[in-house]
Amino acid sequence: MAHIPVKEGLPGIRGLVNFRPETGKPLYELAQTLLRTPSTLTEAEREIIATYVSSKNECVFCTMSHAAAARHLLGEDSEIVDKVMENPTNAPISEKLKALIVIAGKVQKGGRIVTDEDIAGARSLGATDMEIHDAVLIAATFSMFNRYVDGLASFTPTDPSTYSEMGKRMAEVGYVPPIQ
Amino acid sequence: MAHIPVKEGLPGIRGLVNFRPETGKPLYELAQTLLRTPSTLTEAEREIIATYVSSKNECVFCTMSHAAAARHLLGEDSEIVDKVMENPTNAPISEKLKALIVIAGKVQKGGRIVTDEDIAGARSLGATDMEIHDAVLIAATFSMFNRYVDGLASFTPTDPSTYSEMGKRMAEVGYVPPIQ
Repeated sequence: MAHIPVKEGLPGIRGLVNFRPETGKPLYELAQTLLRTPSTLTEAEREIIATYVSSKNECVFCTMSHAAAARHLLGEDSEIVDKVMENPTNAPISEKLKALIVIAGKVQKGGRIVTDEDIAGARSLGATDMEIHDAVLIAATFSMFNRYVDGLASFTPTDPSTYSEMGKRMAEVGYVPPIQ
Repeated sequence: MAHIPVKEGLPGIRGLVNFRPETGKPLYELAQTLLRTPSTLTEAEREIIATYVSSKNECVFCTMSHAAAARHLLGEDSEIVDKVMENPTNAPISEKLKALIVIAGKVQKGGRIVTDEDIAGARSLGATDMEIHDAVLIAATFSMFNRYVDGLASFTPTDPSTYSEMGKRMAEVGYVPPIQ
């Protein structure tokens, strides 16, 4: 049971945003801007970074839901997200994305451990300033969402089919607050 | 030097928000809602939680700037923020705020370690559901801001007088994006 009285049946971040729509609005706007507005990183690549960081933070709700969104976006290549969570170094993704995931993984542990070499490495593989910025902010943002959801023990469904429905909506509709 | 080309002289989060105003807008709106809109927690209490979490994440820019904002709001009791950073248990703050800081400190480490007992303890000292929610989200939000600022190595001034100016503005004007 959640630590605060959230509306029954609203899982993860949705229950919390329903409880406090004033903070929910900028939180959803941040997710939508980072993960869905036009970018030289594909939506699937951005969801993969979000999923990877959430899995490192052991946030079951965020990992399951964003993995489901990534799988929906990846279509027949949906297994890529599972391979990244297993070991990004061996996953069938671009070297540039691997370098951005190294940076995101460091940000998950703490911003101060990102080095000039990490940034130069990503840049040498074609990462732009905006891609580096967004990878860092996606990792920081999910370090927040993961703590918010788990810190309040929000409802985490266990049925995988719930997440595939959720992932489809996240992929197709994007991040729209549950209450306007 | 920052890892991405930010405008010279804009420190911390301001340089990053100037670089990417689309994400800056919801970030500032989140800070303003959590730290400045009416609440049963005073603005100083909320800035103290933000400062405490930032100091645990060793983010110099966020710690120095939010401590300065808290000092400005506390007036003649400005030393309270330093006592909280030293050891919240012995600081001259309410037992309720101490309990919320215990929760915030756990969220800083990871949301999953907050226990039912932590929440019940805060509630027995008078904390409301909204105060518990906001303490968790402030801790989660600063776990994001700290990683964002340090992950991109944003400019961190070293002159204390810069921070007291900044704290005054944060206390009096609030969180307004540097670029509209």
